[in-house]
Amino acid sequence: MSSPISTGLSRRTLLGALAALPALPALVGALPAFAQNDPLPSWNDGPAKQAILDFLRATTDASSKDLVPPEERIATFDQDGTLWVEHPIYTQLLFCLERVADVVKQKPELANVEPFKTVLTGDAAKIAKFSLHDFEAIAVATLTGMDVDVFAADVKAWIAEAKDRRWKRLFTDLTYQPMQEALSLFRANGYKTFIVTGGGQDFVRTYSNRVYGIPPEQVVGSALGTKFSYDAKGRPILTREPKLLLNDDNAGKVEGIHLEIGRRPRAAFGNSTGDRQMLEYAKAGDGARLSMLVLHDDANREYAYGPAKGLPDTKVGTFPQVLYDQAKKDGWFVISMKDDWKRIFGFE
Amino acid sequence: MSSPISTGLSRRTLLGALAALPALPALVGALPAFAQNDPLPSWNDGPAKQAILDFLRATTDASSKDLVPPEERIATFDQDGTLWVEHPIYTQLLFCLERVADVVKQKPELANVEPFKTVLTGDAAKIAKFSLHDFEAIAVATLTGMDVDVFAADVKAWIAEAKDRRWKRLFTDLTYQPMQEALSLFRANGYKTFIVTGGGQDFVRTYSNRVYGIPPEQVVGSALGTKFSYDAKGRPILTREPKLLLNDDNAGKVEGIHLEIGRRPRAAFGNSTGDRQMLEYAKAGDGARLSMLVLHDDANREYAYGPAKGLPDTKVGTFPQVLYDQAKKDGWFVISMKDDWKRIFGFE
Repeated sequence: MSSPISTGLSRRTLLGALAALPALPALVGALPAFAQNDPLPSWNDGPAKQAILDFLRATTDASSKDLVPPEERIATFDQDGTLWVEHPIYTQLLFCLERVADVVKQKPELANVEPFKTVLTGDAAKIAKFSLHDFEAIAVATLTGMDVDVFAADVKAWIAEAKDRRWKRLFTDLTYQPMQEALSLFRANGYKTFIVTGGGQDFVRTYSNRVYGIPPEQVVGSALGTKFSYDAKGRPILTREPKLLLNDDNAGKVEGIHLEIGRRPRAAFGNSTGDRQMLEYAKAGDGARLSMLVLHDDANREYAYGPAKGLPDTKVGTFPQVLYDQAKKDGWFVISMKDDWKRIFGFE
Repeated sequence: MSSPISTGLSRRTLLGALAALPALPALVGALPAFAQNDPLPSWNDGPAKQAILDFLRATTDASSKDLVPPEERIATFDQDGTLWVEHPIYTQLLFCLERVADVVKQKPELANVEPFKTVLTGDAAKIAKFSLHDFEAIAVATLTGMDVDVFAADVKAWIAEAKDRRWKRLFTDLTYQPMQEALSLFRANGYKTFIVTGGGQDFVRTYSNRVYGIPPEQVVGSALGTKFSYDAKGRPILTREPKLLLNDDNAGKVEGIHLEIGRRPRAAFGNSTGDRQMLEYAKAGDGARLSMLVLHDDANREYAYGPAKGLPDTKVGTFPQVLYDQAKKDGWFVISMKDDWKRIFGFE
């Protein structure tokens, strides 16, 4: 394709000249497609990017046999490891660990009780060896018993300041720019985008709109039961109960989708074994379907984990060889962070 | 107000003449405000209509101290008795009773087992005396054990034909025109409208978009657990389980709102004791709030029930005196169907 850039004009010069024209918007529409018209500019050309573009064209082009009515355009996205960094620890788990000190202030008797005692020492090696039972005790102590509005305010205050140690940036800055572009492109094509996370939905809902443009009611996640009652002044309150109502992981993701969305997604994105059933469910519907898996294979720019492609296995975001093989067999697309993403973060 | 109709021209003649003009839309916009510019034309002027208009102006006018950001505009509506007729029997309960014959075809041994035996006789007086246990047995037999997609298809086929006996019209025609106008007006003001029903959310979701313009994911209702598994061909399926995950009535409505919406509604509409906590919860938030109760006091055009205002009490849609008194005390508005609604149904 002949483009003005190949004529010897620098890109910057050209853009400067264009900016001086009064009728820029109309003119830009008449120019041949530049890079900035690429709806997925942080994606390298390749099968993953092409799969997204093909799917959206197939389901939104009026002449397509696979056209999907606007009201049925549903796309679901896992969060941890799919939309933002999940290593070396889930952000919500860090929130729980950091909240232990506050909980102990309220209930000093816990200071000498495990697992709280160890958490207070900050000994990461010991904390990493906690059993599921230990983590459950921490979750109950830090996530339940309070008013839902109090909890939301606490999370908002924490997430506004909490930073990752490697990049020294807010966790909310560590979303993947290519996935942000995918979210925007799906929405521009009439899709309603949903987060479907194994994490707590009340946690993610506090920042989903600000960070992803996804309103709280479009976040499906693991959910506790709540209990309605009245406070001393007779005002209605809702309290977080130590009862898991929805374990939104593995098969629970499909059950959560049915509960809170009520429809099979047309497209689904994940990055681990916990997303397998969601990707199967999305792909099994009729017409054009898209299931995609983010593969963390870029140790330099982010992390490399999971035994697929000979990467080391970890406890977080498991992506075993069998999942890789299923993707190939079932027609899912694997997104290689190393090969498919031009850049990882918006701040780069 | 001087109107063309009073000049002797018939309305039909006038409309015919207008239709012949090429620039009709622009011309209509320039005419003085006729009744058709009233956003709530089926409402009589009065405190109920005014409360809706005042609330919407207070929360959407850019200069209002109670302005609500667009992304926080949430309004919830009960269905049975609030958006459509609930007498003499909840539509979904009729669906269950009518499905019993099909269930018995599949399992002939049930033909001689109560309560199925009585249902098959069609003896309405005996059915009306069923215990809660009887109804639960019918619900389990007719609402559970099948694939969620099969269930949705069955409901769609049934609701496309099922008619009310009094009006001899489809149940889906028996929505209240004034409430349809209220739903549209809330949406026109940037509100996301949700149904929050004691009925089954999977039942209502099959027709909510067509009938109310409310997509399935904006229907919160009583919900069964589902179970993910694979069929004989290895395809993922989701089966309805005989386990009540969410009893979306009374306090359960607030818990359901938190689970599936995640935010306190700014406005809520109901018609019975089952809506009390939802109305309290909406009203208890800060800023401008609107809680409204539909009172069924029009025996001629619809039904009159509930002991408030001396009406007879019934088992369906209970509206006791204490609820009426609470409405007055807490600043909710009571909508009198008789006094506040010019017409009840769209087909009138």
